[in-house]
Amino acid sequence: MKIAVVGAGALGLYYGALLQRSGMEVRFLLRRDFEAISGNGLKVFSVNGDFYLPHVKGYREPQEIGPVDLVLVGLKSFANDRFEDLVRPLLGERTQILTLQNGLGNEEALADLFGAERIIGGVAFLCSNRGEPGEVHHLGAGRIILGEYLRCDNGRVEQLSDMFRKAGVDCRAIDDLKRARWEKLVWNIPFNGLCALLLQPVTSLLAHEATRTLVRELMLEVIAAANVQGLLSPIPESFADSMLEFTDAMGEYRPSMQIDREEGRPLEIGAIFTTPLAYGMQKGINMTRVGMLETLLKQATL
Amino acid sequence: MKIAVVGAGALGLYYGALLQRSGMEVRFLLRRDFEAISGNGLKVFSVNGDFYLPHVKGYREPQEIGPVDLVLVGLKSFANDRFEDLVRPLLGERTQILTLQNGLGNEEALADLFGAERIIGGVAFLCSNRGEPGEVHHLGAGRIILGEYLRCDNGRVEQLSDMFRKAGVDCRAIDDLKRARWEKLVWNIPFNGLCALLLQPVTSLLAHEATRTLVRELMLEVIAAANVQGLLSPIPESFADSMLEFTDAMGEYRPSMQIDREEGRPLEIGAIFTTPLAYGMQKGINMTRVGMLETLLKQATL
Repeated sequence: MKIAVVGAGALGLYYGALLQRSGMEVRFLLRRDFEAISGNGLKVFSVNGDFYLPHVKGYREPQEIGPVDLVLVGLKSFANDRFEDLVRPLLGERTQILTLQNGLGNEEALADLFGAERIIGGVAFLCSNRGEPGEVHHLGAGRIILGEYLRCDNGRVEQLSDMFRKAGVDCRAIDDLKRARWEKLVWNIPFNGLCALLLQPVTSLLAHEATRTLVRELMLEVIAAANVQGLLSPIPESFADSMLEFTDAMGEYRPSMQIDREEGRPLEIGAIFTTPLAYGMQKGINMTRVGMLETLLKQATL
Repeated sequence: MKIAVVGAGALGLYYGALLQRSGMEVRFLLRRDFEAISGNGLKVFSVNGDFYLPHVKGYREPQEIGPVDLVLVGLKSFANDRFEDLVRPLLGERTQILTLQNGLGNEEALADLFGAERIIGGVAFLCSNRGEPGEVHHLGAGRIILGEYLRCDNGRVEQLSDMFRKAGVDCRAIDDLKRARWEKLVWNIPFNGLCALLLQPVTSLLAHEATRTLVRELMLEVIAAANVQGLLSPIPESFADSMLEFTDAMGEYRPSMQIDREEGRPLEIGAIFTTPLAYGMQKGINMTRVGMLETLLKQATL
């Protein structure tokens, strides 16, 4: 299978490298790392074992890659206005598009441009970051959940799951992509939002009763908005408590949005806050606290 | 009239100096400024004209002052646990206690300890800060609104108003101290809270639609809680818009709580957030956004 990785940051480089190592024909669309990777290959420093790919196909323009079987989209969602330029040249008649981006609205944006039947969504639970040019660091996790945007069962998602599993990724196909996206928001909205606003790791929020309660209230707002989106089955309120316990076990973790703010990078507020808030409002659910957190985050990062 | 000033910070020193200048017999309970003021007097740098009091009576212990006619309380409200030690020795049978502190709960705490009939409350609109020891800077405003804690009309508050007016303070007596306190909170809660959290002046909040809306929503929550507290007349929602317009005219103003945070001092979260939230809850009003702001402020200043 011929795969193009668009948005070759910490996520795209990591999964792309694993797929190439397993025998897939992977082409990376690169900017910052073009010289380093084209010249010297890609080094992956991973908690599962380091590896080195001496020959990696890097490109500056999608036209040089041309049509592929699968486009793997790892762009930060605030760069979605580049879809037309970056993705269109990679499409053949049967090209599939898999977005592993954060938050809501990415599948919709791709579907509007390129046709809904092409679109597969993946929710990635990955802790990785970029190092020097030509390097990527995998710090933990890496699981992917895959689902069809159109919820049709055509076996395609199972095939992609197989491909990822053969590459060493814990991957499974699910029926309800939308539910998986909202479930991830139940974690992302409170923890990415509050940690980025306060510049404190998850442990600090969990250690105090008032912030722990606020995290849970934010989660319950997200669950309420999720459950009016036509999920195949509702997310129970107990999911919030599971997420709190899950996070208790994470230690001094700093969510990606906190790291982005600390390092002066733009935050994915649109996909993680603005779009979910709009989807809630469309169905009559006003997420008061989530909306306030969005406002504060935007104002703090003007 | 013999007056003791307890909590001789930027507020206590300023009003105390004006009262002494007008002929009142004022005694200041001092800590940081004791040496400077006892030795060299007090310099007031004021937008209304500087003045210098070469002889000022400063004391380290309230026992050295003994009973007075009026105790003027200017303590930061987080020091209210010192009332017993600092105020009790100043009380004679007919001593009045005037608190010019911020927020809610100060009159109640004084009334519990010393008897409700003694207590008068004042809402001060003063922009001042301490300079070097022996100096105080008056940057603007200074108006005081005075009311009886027990809402009885005994002429006492009118007499105090006269005294302040003779000292050059814009002062008037009102029937409903509680309403004046809550009106001030309509401003203090959003602006002190958000400016201290985001470390941005009022202009930044007012310049963006989302934060301007959040300010207004916070104000409406405070107004709703105020209007179930048994005020003589309700605060209309239009008061929020008046406060926004009033603040538009203030320029790059930094509220006191922002300055306190920037300078590493403790914030008056209890009197300005925690107590109003509790008073709201007692009457069935849950101020969701105000509660979230309190939680964030506490967490940000741990």
